[in-house]
Amino acid sequence: MAEAPIASMKVAPTAPAVDADVLASIETPYLMVDLGRMDAAIADMAGSLAARGVALRPHAKTHKSLEVARRQLAAGAVGLTVATIGEAEVFADGGFDDLFIAYPLVPIGTKGARLRAVAERARLSVGIDSPTGAEAVADALGPAVDTTSVLIEVDSGGRRSGTAPGDVAAVAKAAARRGLRVVGVFTHGGHGYEGPEAKAAAAADEVRALTEAAAGLSSVGIEARVVSAGSTPTALMSARGAVTEERPGTYVFGDRQQVALGSIRPDAVAAAVVAMVVSVNRAQRRFVVDAGAKTLSKDVAPYLAGHGEIPTLGGQPIARLSDHHGAVDVASGDPMPEVGQVVAVLPNHICPVVNLFDSFSVFTDGQPTATWRVDARGRNS
Amino acid sequence: MAEAPIASMKVAPTAPAVDADVLASIETPYLMVDLGRMDAAIADMAGSLAARGVALRPHAKTHKSLEVARRQLAAGAVGLTVATIGEAEVFADGGFDDLFIAYPLVPIGTKGARLRAVAERARLSVGIDSPTGAEAVADALGPAVDTTSVLIEVDSGGRRSGTAPGDVAAVAKAAARRGLRVVGVFTHGGHGYEGPEAKAAAAADEVRALTEAAAGLSSVGIEARVVSAGSTPTALMSARGAVTEERPGTYVFGDRQQVALGSIRPDAVAAAVVAMVVSVNRAQRRFVVDAGAKTLSKDVAPYLAGHGEIPTLGGQPIARLSDHHGAVDVASGDPMPEVGQVVAVLPNHICPVVNLFDSFSVFTDGQPTATWRVDARGRNS
Repeated sequence: MAEAPIASMKVAPTAPAVDADVLASIETPYLMVDLGRMDAAIADMAGSLAARGVALRPHAKTHKSLEVARRQLAAGAVGLTVATIGEAEVFADGGFDDLFIAYPLVPIGTKGARLRAVAERARLSVGIDSPTGAEAVADALGPAVDTTSVLIEVDSGGRRSGTAPGDVAAVAKAAARRGLRVVGVFTHGGHGYEGPEAKAAAAADEVRALTEAAAGLSSVGIEARVVSAGSTPTALMSARGAVTEERPGTYVFGDRQQVALGSIRPDAVAAAVVAMVVSVNRAQRRFVVDAGAKTLSKDVAPYLAGHGEIPTLGGQPIARLSDHHGAVDVASGDPMPEVGQVVAVLPNHICPVVNLFDSFSVFTDGQPTATWRVDARGRNS
Repeated sequence: MAEAPIASMKVAPTAPAVDADVLASIETPYLMVDLGRMDAAIADMAGSLAARGVALRPHAKTHKSLEVARRQLAAGAVGLTVATIGEAEVFADGGFDDLFIAYPLVPIGTKGARLRAVAERARLSVGIDSPTGAEAVADALGPAVDTTSVLIEVDSGGRRSGTAPGDVAAVAKAAARRGLRVVGVFTHGGHGYEGPEAKAAAAADEVRALTEAAAGLSSVGIEARVVSAGSTPTALMSARGAVTEERPGTYVFGDRQQVALGSIRPDAVAAAVVAMVVSVNRAQRRFVVDAGAKTLSKDVAPYLAGHGEIPTLGGQPIARLSDHHGAVDVASGDPMPEVGQVVAVLPNHICPVVNLFDSFSVFTDGQPTATWRVDARGRNS
């Protein structure tokens, strides 16, 4: 469990156990999910947060899948977090009726009509971080302001969106003037991804920023009923009683980055890109798999080496990626594969990887058992 | 023209000229293409290669678009290069009948049947770089071996796929034993992307490797009728008469990387990701656009700063990307934008960016005039 991390950067992650000939029965490159590992991750996070009395609203941008979201809700999640109106549309279409768009929305033009349509058929919460955002959301929602909840985003040190904690009251006043129902505050301590030592400080920063933000709401007469933090590294590290809700996403699959951060056990990574060795150069001790930047993405945290690793070939990192090639330089003594060999590659960061595929190949006990769509792939708007 | 590069890393690229309110008429983030700039790039490359007596077979993995490919053929391209069987299927379905899969294919299982189906309805060439690949291609093609051309890939220093030049004869013999029609050799001098000074050497390496590879074919009684090199940085730098064909891809749109390499003029970049400013922090001089890693991709050549730049806001680089956020730290003196402002972001590397979108928004003389599908998006297999 992430609460007592046992992983370290010295412990290499393992791939789900599937025989090579079974892996090879599907055309490479493809995205595999081990159902047992995924369901265990879903249950672990739900159980850990329930034990802390904190609501779990998982971020669906990681998986973009109706089927995965159903399993999260069945395990106790209160609703879903999404990043875009497009993702909200997909999950509303799929029957999910409690959705939070955790993003500083500025829904101008036709996007406003789309937001209102979602608000009219789901219990919707949306983020804002500026008076301009408040105006645009109010214009978009029209009469749906009465049934839509608004949360103000506060920056807790992640250096992206979110207003300063001291400016929350001003944003709340602008929202209230337009009749928006402000119900709370949210943040994302993205700086918890900076390294294994950064998580605890980022979780504390989240709590500090949210507490100041809630006080800002209170100063203009609004109670912060929702105090929402979250990322997979920080989700179980917030001070007890300080938040009402956590929004981790990546925990559902895990990846090399989460293992390095100590947020996921090395034997718990549930997703991999399965690829074929298409070229071997024995003289230069190099081989190439048919997974490149268009399947593994190019996302390398400073504490990771390479663009993914292959546990069944000694955990060797992929040194270079082009669009359709992943090149591995094989250390002396490590095994050289054969052309045609099919291997599982553990990606650095699973979120952008999922968005590069149209479907998951789901494995149960080492056998392919289902294909699930990546329902919200590409819904970036 | 790329033959006499006038760009340098000191010259900031410009975005296609479109009024901000016109940019804002489409929901952000979206992928825009300036038709005038694109058509000029298509004509320039075709004209430059025709003047050198070299065939142009552009790599369609950059654009993945039937409409763009039609324009390339209309301007004189002899056929298309693709990276995967899936891309070949899309372009064969679209009526293109001269396709080269420039990849070391190992088409085992159901992929073999797909390859054969393409070979039966298009003039197809395929790459191999190993005896195992030759066996798999022969098994896949069956009777279509008689109408399919095979090219052997040779490594020219790019450190990914391709056999050593000295091993070409052995691969050719394995191919000939199985009745494959080996017609030539190909390489990709990807090390021309290592920096502005690397292009000329990479082009010379391509020629050297191809010449040695062609001699290897000759030693087993096969004439290399096709000697194919190519990348946008090297396409116009091969020694005269040394190659029969070039396969550049990125030239059709250009990007920050090509400008930095001096392969595309700063005023010729034809594609951009259009994004909205959704968050502004004046105290910390930071703003955030709604284009992140799921639209701009995380691909940063060592000679580039940041994940894209915004010409209309002083060319400021995007310092940090998360999935849906691009954060810019604004230098003192540079302009701060307003929330709601819509801007064009020039990506670092356009190929993975196009693959993240389902369509292009095409602009002509500053106005949106068409929407084209990214027909082969996600066809990685």
